[in-house]
Order: sequence, then C-alpha cells, then structure tokens
Amino acid sequence: MSTWQPDNGAHILSFHTLERIGREHGAVVAQAVSAAVTAGDAVKGTTSPNPPVGASLFDDQGVVSTGGTSPAGGPHAEINALRNLAGRPSEGLSAAVTLEPCNHTGRTGPCSHALLEAGVRRVFYLSADENPQAQGGAEFLREHGVEVYFLDLPVQTLLPWKKAIEKGRPAVTVKWAHTLDGFIAAPDGTSQWITGERARRFVHRDRSQRDAILVGTGTVLTDDPQLTARTATGPYENQPLRVVVGTRYIPESFHLGASRDPNILSFASIEAALSELWERGARDVLVEGGAGLITSFFEAGLVDFIHDYTAPKLLGAGIALTGWPGARTMADIKEFRRLGTRVLGEDVLSILGQS
Amino acid sequence: MSTWQPDNGAHILSFHTLERIGREHGAVVAQAVSAAVTAGDAVKGTTSPNPPVGASLFDDQGVVSTGGTSPAGGPHAEINALRNLAGRPSEGLSAAVTLEPCNHTGRTGPCSHALLEAGVRRVFYLSADENPQAQGGAEFLREHGVEVYFLDLPVQTLLPWKKAIEKGRPAVTVKWAHTLDGFIAAPDGTSQWITGERARRFVHRDRSQRDAILVGTGTVLTDDPQLTARTATGPYENQPLRVVVGTRYIPESFHLGASRDPNILSFASIEAALSELWERGARDVLVEGGAGLITSFFEAGLVDFIHDYTAPKLLGAGIALTGWPGARTMADIKEFRRLGTRVLGEDVLSILGQS
Repeated sequence: MSTWQPDNGAHILSFHTLERIGREHGAVVAQAVSAAVTAGDAVKGTTSPNPPVGASLFDDQGVVSTGGTSPAGGPHAEINALRNLAGRPSEGLSAAVTLEPCNHTGRTGPCSHALLEAGVRRVFYLSADENPQAQGGAEFLREHGVEVYFLDLPVQTLLPWKKAIEKGRPAVTVKWAHTLDGFIAAPDGTSQWITGERARRFVHRDRSQRDAILVGTGTVLTDDPQLTARTATGPYENQPLRVVVGTRYIPESFHLGASRDPNILSFASIEAALSELWERGARDVLVEGGAGLITSFFEAGLVDFIHDYTAPKLLGAGIALTGWPGARTMADIKEFRRLGTRVLGEDVLSILGQS
Repeated sequence: MSTWQPDNGAHILSFHTLERIGREHGAVVAQAVSAAVTAGDAVKGTTSPNPPVGASLFDDQGVVSTGGTSPAGGPHAEINALRNLAGRPSEGLSAAVTLEPCNHTGRTGPCSHALLEAGVRRVFYLSADENPQAQGGAEFLREHGVEVYFLDLPVQTLLPWKKAIEKGRPAVTVKWAHTLDGFIAAPDGTSQWITGERARRFVHRDRSQRDAILVGTGTVLTDDPQLTARTATGPYENQPLRVVVGTRYIPESFHLGASRDPNILSFASIEAALSELWERGARDVLVEGGAGLITSFFEAGLVDFIHDYTAPKLLGAGIALTGWPGARTMADIKEFRRLGTRVLGEDVLSILGQS
C-alpha cells in the first residue's frame, strides 16, 4: 500500500484511481501501473520530441523491472524495462505502459514487436496514442494472442506531449503565482515572495521537466531572471532552453543577454518562438511571465494549461494577474478545467486546462 | 483501511496522521480516533455553548460504540458513547475522545468520573481543553490508574469553539468565493455562479454546522438572500440564526426583513451582534458578506478563520475581494495559515487561520 502514496511527483495517479484498478484487476496491477507512471515522470523533460512514457514489467508477486523513454534516438520505455531485467526471464511477464506501445519503426524498432518477442503475456496501457504514425500497437499485440487492457487513465505527464501532437506546435503552460485577491506583485512591483519555499522549489523541479521556459523582454529587463532549474545544492541535470520573447534589446550584462549561451534564444514574436522551438524538437514549454506576454498568449488562443499557484495572502492592491480588459457580466467569465491539485506548504498549485 | 478515507467531512484527520497513529499505537486506535472525529463532526452546529466533541469506545477487535455531544443540557460525548453500548459490558474497553474529558459538574456530571466508573482502561484524547473550568480530567483518570494518552492533533471541528473560549466572544469565520484574479462578482454585480455546484452544496452543509450566519444590510438589499442551509431536497434539520448587521432598514418584504422570524436578528454594529450572540450561546459564526461587512471585521481585528473558495476562472475586472485600501510593498502583505484544503469539483476550499 505504501507504494501507492503520492509522494514522488505532482502527476502520480490518485489513491482512489489506484484503489479502483486494484479492485478490478488486482493489487499487483495497481502497483505496476503506479510504477509505470513514476518511471514516466522520472524522464519528463528529457525525451522530446518523443513522449515521456513509463513502463513496468511484473509477475504475480510484484514489479520486477521499470523503464522510461530514453532521450531522442534511444530506446523507448518498454525496451528499457526489458533491458532492466538484466538477464532475468521475460517469458510470461505482464507489462504496464503509460501510452499504447508504438507499432512503427522510427529510429528504434516497434515496441509492440519487442513485447511479443519477449513473451509478455498481458499488457495494460493507460492512455491511447494520438500520433497516427505510432498507433496500432495494441491491435498488433491482440492479433498475436497477447491479452491487452486499455485502462483509459489521465496520465498527466503525457498531457503536454499529447496536446502538442494535436496542435502541431509545442504545448503551452502558463505559470503564475498570486495572492487570494489576484495580485502577482505589490504596487511598487516587489513580489519576493508571494509563494513559500516549497512552491518555489516545486517550480524549479517543474522547469527541469520542460523543454523550454519563455519570458518577455519586459520581465528580463525588470527582474534579470536566470530561469535555470536549481535545487538548494545546485542545478538540476536537465536544463530547459531559455527563451526571451519581445522586441526590446537585452544588454549582454543580463543573465539572458544577447549571445551569452547557445541555450538562450530570442524571438520577436510568440509565433516565431513556437515555430522554431517545434523544429528543435520542443513539445512542452512553460511561460513564466510577465503579465504582458501571458496576455499575448491568451489573446492568440495559445494557452493549453495553467499552473496556478495561489498563496493564502492579501495585498489589496498591486499588479493584476492578467492585462485582460475584463468581463462586463458573468456570461463573459473565462473558465478552466481542473486537472490536478497539490498543496505545497501554505500554497496550492492548481493544474488547469481549457474547459 | 477503507474507513480511513476522508469522504465524510472537511474536518476529518489526514490519511498520513492516521497512518502515524496506527504505527505508534496500532491500527485499532487509528480507527477509534477516526470514529471519534467523525462522531464530533456529526454534531457540529448543535452543541453550543458546549464544544462539538466526539468519542468512541473500542476493544482489540475494533470500535464498539460512538457518541457525540448532545445539545446544551444533554449528555457529553463520552456519556453518549457509553449509553450507545446498549447494555454491552464497558469494563476493560478503551476510549478515544476528541477533547480532554471534562472534570467538572455543570448541567451534567464529570465525564472523567463516568469513564472511570465504567471500567474504561485506556483513554486517548486528541486535544487539550483550554476551558479552565473543565480541565483536569486527564489528571484525574491517571491518578485512578487509567492509562491516558494525549495525541495532540489539530481537531478542526473544535477550532472555532476553542478560539471562542480564548477570546470570550464567538469565533468568526469569513467566507468568500472568488476567481483566480480575485473578483467576487462581475463589474455589473452579477456573481451567479462563481463556484460550482459541489462548492455551493458544501456551503449549505457548512451553514448547518454554524450557530449563526451574518450578512450586511447592503447584501440583503442587493441579493435578498435566504441564508438557510438546504440540501437539494429540502432544509437541513439544524438551521443557524440569521443575523443582519448594519444601519440600513430592511423592508418586511425581504427574506431577512424586520420581525419576520424569531431566528432572524438585526444589529447596528459588529460588536453588538457578537456580544448578544455570545449571550445566546453562539460560539461559531460565519460571515458571508458583503465586502463592506467583511472589511469591517478585518479592521476590527475580529477575523479568526477564512473559508476561501477559489474557482478556476478569470473575470479580468469586477468587484474586488476586499475593500482594503491595500499594501504599497511586499512588507505590507497580510498572511494566513493553511489549516486545511479540500477540492470540491472544479473549486478549491482553503481553510485558513491567522498566522
């Protein structure tokens, strides 16, 4: 039971979901599903343009191996889980995979064939593959006598990649932090800190799982952010591309100043940024501000997800969350859909999507 | 394990707290503690001026009886749990109680004596009694050979009563509902509905657990609220006093109009309202608005708790959460302490206290 606790990431399945799987398919399947989700979470940010998939192999006693997608060109999750058996027999095992096993030969062979050849007897896949190139793995396995179960779960780790495939551009998540009364900074522009330490640590972890972080030139000139993903003791191994969007010149003396670093990019427009990032393989980008850039993303209809950090504080006055001119009556209200919620110390992170 | 799930109230102990009690004292004690908290929750709103205490009696196999405090003048929780044994032997049982058993003779005899006489062998109490009149129950039991354990847990159901005893006035909870950008209504005053159906149902349940609901005369004249506590099929059995605060005249045609109902009270000032409500035995009142009355409560330093309902929506403009003139810089920010969090459909309820 203790392996079911949501203590290792925001994207883990809920206790209730796993309890339901346990009732329907047995406790071992629930553990295997949880292990697959955790393995996918662990590689998020390192797999683009491929999806951050996780897989586990298990028998009646429990999970015997896990694997996540390697960086582009490397093996997919299922192959890594098979390799991680390290010589133990694969014949008769079951597999849990967060995404339908691929059925096509890209830079690697089809995972569906690899599972079949390994003698895997049952495959539980959590979500469908919307990439038409890769579909068909479940059908192939069924045709060859493997028991295949589609669990249809909302695997949060895969949502940005799925949205990117659907839209043909990187998925855009807007991040903001505000008080209960909707201010992101005091009237004098100070905002250190709206949220507490746990939420700020979580933002750094989240950055390490994205392909790129975008900020406007105004924010760069005002705050001179580094936009790196850091722990208390040093940088995360995986660092996203750092992207400045806007037309104002950033002097070299700034952390994101012109031509300091090949991982710092500059674009005059949102469209140019998303187009070039897509070409570079980015599928999952985070927009951190300021309010002007965020408003531009909303006006262009390019916001897919919001990471909303709400702090239990009041400012009474200050800089508003959006530059949107606003509704006149309730019929004009913009609504979002709750995809997840996480309490981070005193603050709450709401993960929202378009409704 | 399934009895530990937080499905029957906002005030239940967390899974992690119960897991810790289970590790330290055994799974049966954790179940008994959970049952005591649930029994206390069930009587919240009906016990003032007494606290809404819950108690359970258990043996090595599990819980055999529970009880909650009866309305004023009736038996306390421990006595009701003993009565609910309905003739089964009490000798050798253990007890879990959300508050230290009382040691004084008021309208009822001391619970500490009743537990001792019933032959209860072990008593686990979750929180201390700050009421000096009632203290000493744990000491009395220990002196007479009963094993007594103080678990020191935050029993949310008891927080308003404890605050009321500390302050010598009813505890005040402010309730508000707002968008992510901090608006409680659109610019034209419309606010139906900021929050979704599950949050609105929860508000009605919460009203049924309070001694009184307070609104300003401005809100009455604008919205003509009923302020009753209703389910989809009819009113809750327990209805709070309905209290209008302010100097504007409310015509009889309004739901809260002059002299319609003995359970509707009117006061010119906050102080007059709290003083008379205390005399009538109210210990736990909810302030529902409008922004003017809420601001007056904040300015008078009379807000103990906030029930903050945040909806994942944006208005961009509208009526602000507070009438507070506001901070100039981050040093002026008002902070609250998170006491609990509950996802209600699309919305989040944050239960906050003064930090």
